[in-house]
Amino acid sequence: MASSPLISRLVEALRCLPGVGPKSAQRMAFHLLERNREAALDLARVIEEAVTAVGRCESCRTLSEHALCPICASPRRDSRMLCVVETPADMAAIDASTGYRGMFFVLMGHLSPLDGIGPAELGLDQFEQRLAGGGITEVILATSSTVEGEATAHYLAEMVRERSIRATRIAQGIPMGGELEYVDGGTLARAITARQDAL
Amino acid sequence: MASSPLISRLVEALRCLPGVGPKSAQRMAFHLLERNREAALDLARVIEEAVTAVGRCESCRTLSEHALCPICASPRRDSRMLCVVETPADMAAIDASTGYRGMFFVLMGHLSPLDGIGPAELGLDQFEQRLAGGGITEVILATSSTVEGEATAHYLAEMVRERSIRATRIAQGIPMGGELEYVDGGTLARAITARQDAL
Repeated sequence: MASSPLISRLVEALRCLPGVGPKSAQRMAFHLLERNREAALDLARVIEEAVTAVGRCESCRTLSEHALCPICASPRRDSRMLCVVETPADMAAIDASTGYRGMFFVLMGHLSPLDGIGPAELGLDQFEQRLAGGGITEVILATSSTVEGEATAHYLAEMVRERSIRATRIAQGIPMGGELEYVDGGTLARAITARQDAL
Repeated sequence: MASSPLISRLVEALRCLPGVGPKSAQRMAFHLLERNREAALDLARVIEEAVTAVGRCESCRTLSEHALCPICASPRRDSRMLCVVETPADMAAIDASTGYRGMFFVLMGHLSPLDGIGPAELGLDQFEQRLAGGGITEVILATSSTVEGEATAHYLAEMVRERSIRATRIAQGIPMGGELEYVDGGTLARAITARQDAL
């Protein structure tokens, strides 16, 4: 073994990051130690601080260091719209790339009975309270287009409609720039079924 | 902005890692906070420990938390062979993939006068002492095949030969599995010039 034990431990520890294999972990370790010790120390401190301080937003359940996340705390958001997503990353993506300016609700997963993830684990009692609180006119179901995501959306749609609130699902079809030849059959079938009048 | 300030700081701090852009940094931050807080704390601790404890091996200059790195401390290595490399990663790669069982010397860079990196910065006085210490019969120059790497190898070869020690350079040619059609002209020219009797 060419590296000292502590460097090997650093390489091993870096592999807890998603998408980091042994090669990249080694590259990261050497990079931090050879060139970037200040940044490395800063990274270590921020990780500790974040792990200690970051909890859940009381209102939307996303990751947040305050009781309310910046979106739930903002007075400028449209509180009549509620968008349900699976993860904080989905929430960040929708907020960054779309014109949506309503509120969010983060499930932190999807219904998956086999893994023991039911309505309670996704905070659906809290979701029910949000609906019961009144004022919401539309719930956008923005769960993934996977089997579990669809099942979760169906379940949520039932809950929403029982309160006579409009439930919508994000559109499915061919992605932008997608060449039909390379789009999978299921997506293509869905795109044909859900066709709309041409502009 | 969808994320709380502390999460944004974590994302920013993760970007000090090589090859990590804004997207991957965000993915890493959410992954650590949603699923892997134990591992995240462990990572923070190991980074701090490594940054504090890891210095240089007194003998070969590689990164090491002890005065001598595991290779220099090993009694089983052949001390008559010395392999000069640019980085600890190069040393690790040669040790892991080849049958080489001699000693190493790590330059931590290459000669680059424009950047103010001369013989002193690469520890060549220490290298001179290693040569003067006697017992070395061959020095393998395993610097990169770049302009700076070649210049460094030339410089080192002079030093080595002045002491009547054999200086060798790692072979250059087409990489294994390389199709000639896709190999660059310079490499191909070198491979033809350095041709050897077929086995």
